[in-house]
Amino acid sequence: MAEIYTNGHEVAYYDCDLYGKMSLKALLANAVKTSEDQSVQLKRANDYVHNLGLTWIITNYQVVAKRLPRVGEQIQIHTQAKEYNKYFCYRDFWVTTEEGEEIVRIETTFALMNQETRKINRVPDELIAPYQSKKGTKIRRAPKMEAVEVTDEAPYRVRYFDLDTNHHVNNAVYIEWMMDVLGYDFLSSHEMKQFQIRFEKEVAYGCEVMSQYAKIEGAKGIQTKHRIQNGDQTYCEAQILWEEIPKLD
Amino acid sequence: MAEIYTNGHEVAYYDCDLYGKMSLKALLANAVKTSEDQSVQLKRANDYVHNLGLTWIITNYQVVAKRLPRVGEQIQIHTQAKEYNKYFCYRDFWVTTEEGEEIVRIETTFALMNQETRKINRVPDELIAPYQSKKGTKIRRAPKMEAVEVTDEAPYRVRYFDLDTNHHVNNAVYIEWMMDVLGYDFLSSHEMKQFQIRFEKEVAYGCEVMSQYAKIEGAKGIQTKHRIQNGDQTYCEAQILWEEIPKLD
Repeated sequence: MAEIYTNGHEVAYYDCDLYGKMSLKALLANAVKTSEDQSVQLKRANDYVHNLGLTWIITNYQVVAKRLPRVGEQIQIHTQAKEYNKYFCYRDFWVTTEEGEEIVRIETTFALMNQETRKINRVPDELIAPYQSKKGTKIRRAPKMEAVEVTDEAPYRVRYFDLDTNHHVNNAVYIEWMMDVLGYDFLSSHEMKQFQIRFEKEVAYGCEVMSQYAKIEGAKGIQTKHRIQNGDQTYCEAQILWEEIPKLD
Repeated sequence: MAEIYTNGHEVAYYDCDLYGKMSLKALLANAVKTSEDQSVQLKRANDYVHNLGLTWIITNYQVVAKRLPRVGEQIQIHTQAKEYNKYFCYRDFWVTTEEGEEIVRIETTFALMNQETRKINRVPDELIAPYQSKKGTKIRRAPKMEAVEVTDEAPYRVRYFDLDTNHHVNNAVYIEWMMDVLGYDFLSSHEMKQFQIRFEKEVAYGCEVMSQYAKIEGAKGIQTKHRIQNGDQTYCEAQILWEEIPKLD
C-alpha cells in the first residue's frame, strides 16, 4: 500500500476569512505543503526533481467538504500518492479533526513539467518508487464542464507574490480569483461543499485575467461554474456546489 | 519585566516569494499570531477583549531586518508587550534562527478600538495587567513622512479574503499592495532592510485604493515612500529602505 504522511496544523487567523472559516486557498496550500514534506521524508524533495530538469505541477483538484476547518482548530492533513501511470500521479488528501473525524477529502492529479520546454514529461520510475503508489494504465478524465452564460466577471492582475518557484501563478491564487468574484453577500451566506477545478494553462506575471462565473440553482443546490479567461484563452475551469447558511453578519 | 512568549514556525513555501524568501506580509501575520497566542495563554484572548466591546488594532510597525527568513527555515518568533500608556501599547517582536541569531526586529504600536464607534479607547487595567508591561506616559510619535512626487501608482480593489474579523482590510494586505506596485524587476533585485508603516484609516470592502510610491536614491541606499490613497484620503503611509542584491533570475 502507498505510504501515508501526516502533518498537524493549527488553523491560524490568516488562514481564515473574516468569520474564522478556513479559506479553500489556505486549505489547499497546506495540503500541498504536506505532500512536499512527504517528498522530503522520502528523499524526493524539489531539488531531486529539479535535478531531473522537472518540476511538479497540479492539474486537477476535487474537494468534498463536510465542513471547513475553523480558526484555532487543530487539524491533521494526511496524504497518500495512491496511483500513477505514464504521465499522471493521483494523490489523495484528507483532513481530520482532533477527534479523528474526517471533514474534508481532496483528490488531486499531479504531473511533471519539463522546466525548459514547459511540457508534461513521463513519470520516471526512480522518482516515483519510494511513494509505493500502485502503477496503473487508466488515465482519469475530469468531467467536461459545459459552456454556460456568464452571470458576472471581474478582472484580476497578477501580483508579484502570486508567483511560485515555478515562476507562474500558484494554483491557490486561481481559487482566490474564483471565490472573490462571487462577492461579499454570497460568500458570507454560503459554504462550499464540493469543488472541482482543472488547470489548463499557466498564467504568467504581467497578465490580467478575467474571472467569470455562472450561477445555477438546481436540484442539488446552488452551483457556480467558473472560468479564468484571457481573451479566447481559458486558463482554468471549475465548478462549486454550495450550501446556504444563515448570513453571518 | 514583561512576559515573553515564543512561537516556533517552519517557513512554508506559501509564506515565500518565488525565490523562497519570506514575504513581509507572512512575517507580520506570523508575528501577530504569536501575540494572539500569548493573549490566549494569559487568558486575554479575543473573546475577553470583545466582551469589553473592544478589539485590538495595530497602528504602526517598524521592522529592521538583517535578512528575511528563507523557505524551510525553522524560526522562533518572540514577543513582549513592553510598555503602555493611556491609549497605546508598545509591543516588540524578534525573530531568531535555529542557531539563536536574531535576524529581524519589529516594534509595533497596538491600540484598542471600540467595536461600535470604531474610535480608539482607553486601555483598561484589567485587560493589560497579565502582560506585566511597564506603565508609561510618553506617547511615541512615528516620524512624519514628508510629501514627495509619486513615481508610479496602481489601483487595488479590496477582496473578500482581505478582510479580517474586524471587518476591515487586514494590516498585512496594505503591505502587499505597497510591495506589489514596485514590480517584478525591482522586487527580484532588492531586499527589504528597514520598513516603517503608519495606519491612519480603515479600508472597507467595496473600496478601490491607489497604491502610490516614490523612489529616492540617497546616501543610505534606495528608499521607497508609499501611500495608500482613495481620492484625498490617506489610509496608510510607509517607507522602506532597500539593499540591492544580485538579480535572482
